[in-house]
Amino acid sequence: MFEFLTQRRTIRNYSKQTIDTKLLQQILEAGAQSSNTGNMQAYSVVVTTDEDLKKQLSPAHFNQPMLMQAPVVLTFCADFNRITQWCKQRNAEPGYANFQSFMAAAVDAIIFAQTVAIAAETAGLGICYLGTTTYNAQEIIDTLQLPQLVVPVTTLTLGYPEITPAITDRLPLASVVHFETYKDFTPETIDALYLEKEELDFYKKFVADNNKETLAQVFTDVRYTKKNNEFFSEKFYKALEQQGFIQ
Amino acid sequence: MFEFLTQRRTIRNYSKQTIDTKLLQQILEAGAQSSNTGNMQAYSVVVTTDEDLKKQLSPAHFNQPMLMQAPVVLTFCADFNRITQWCKQRNAEPGYANFQSFMAAAVDAIIFAQTVAIAAETAGLGICYLGTTTYNAQEIIDTLQLPQLVVPVTTLTLGYPEITPAITDRLPLASVVHFETYKDFTPETIDALYLEKEELDFYKKFVADNNKETLAQVFTDVRYTKKNNEFFSEKFYKALEQQGFIQ
Repeated sequence: MFEFLTQRRTIRNYSKQTIDTKLLQQILEAGAQSSNTGNMQAYSVVVTTDEDLKKQLSPAHFNQPMLMQAPVVLTFCADFNRITQWCKQRNAEPGYANFQSFMAAAVDAIIFAQTVAIAAETAGLGICYLGTTTYNAQEIIDTLQLPQLVVPVTTLTLGYPEITPAITDRLPLASVVHFETYKDFTPETIDALYLEKEELDFYKKFVADNNKETLAQVFTDVRYTKKNNEFFSEKFYKALEQQGFIQ
Repeated sequence: MFEFLTQRRTIRNYSKQTIDTKLLQQILEAGAQSSNTGNMQAYSVVVTTDEDLKKQLSPAHFNQPMLMQAPVVLTFCADFNRITQWCKQRNAEPGYANFQSFMAAAVDAIIFAQTVAIAAETAGLGICYLGTTTYNAQEIIDTLQLPQLVVPVTTLTLGYPEITPAITDRLPLASVVHFETYKDFTPETIDALYLEKEELDFYKKFVADNNKETLAQVFTDVRYTKKNNEFFSEKFYKALEQQGFIQ
């Protein structure tokens, strides 16, 4: 029953086939029927297909090649701009220039994004999320001309698959599911949950290629370092201030 | 092709039928195949079915009745606890006690949640998101015994529909989609985009029932007030500090 969800894989290589405008509209409409906060729809998406604009966005996404290759780039935003304008035109005093409103809008935007992703996959398209969106939000804000109370929270690249890779491994479900209350891990359960992953040839090569001793070190020393995380924390916080969500 | 997404509705009234454990596991497994940051899976879900625990959670969700009625309550968390423990056991220095890591983990958790929601709906279940999760995160943390670097970001109630309401209206797609760059609204476009919604009998009654002049005022004065948003902003920020995501 869930093959359309369990047999999926992220697609990073796209063919030159463009996406039909009508299909894209249907995909976005499917996304918009998702749940959202109080039916305010505190989100928006910027659909970018223009080569020059994609080039301008590229450095913000660390020049990951899927951005230029994908015919469509979707930047999903937490958005209280439209609602705030509506309130002002309706004799209502908006109160959405704060962190809680950002969180509600971010949740809305990501629920919308994931429904769009599933709709796209159902239509035979491939997607890739770009986590770099919250790293360099300010550059994306500048390029896409996002007004006050609009902040990008994630990006999807969209296109027809050129290369379809194997399905990616996941940790055993017990790694992410707790019953009734959170059951914290013991050293033994951590070992058991990561055993299979750490034994995969793919990851052994990944560790060797990165000249590290353990898979965890690839994450802490190479991919998601403390220094970078702290640098991009401050940068994202400033973008939230700049856009008016933090006073 | 997208009927399973466009014909959905949020379900707030559940029958007494329980959810088969095997089905719930399949739904969660489908969710876990979704995209996530660097395949770290920086999320978790607490599955609550115990009546006493649901009662304890209830005030945090402002005693919304679907929480007690639903056979299953799923609390989705941004979670760097498991990863941090794994790093420490693997001679790796974790650097995830910061805001950017919280954002990455929150995005992971919500992508996971929305795939779980769609899987559940595909199986004939009904879902309702509880936005109250970020309002009273600290109370949920206490009840579910969430450790450091675990913060709840959204909640789903899950059960078989007792009452299936009409499909909820959405704004025209142009309200949430911008092409190439963000095209800010004029007063005229705002009026045009909200016209149909404001003319619905449902919302006219909603405005009258709340003794307000405009629909926007119901949002600003009753449902999502500036005062509450600011109060819950500070509260959520403190929960992030308490859990170690903000220093």
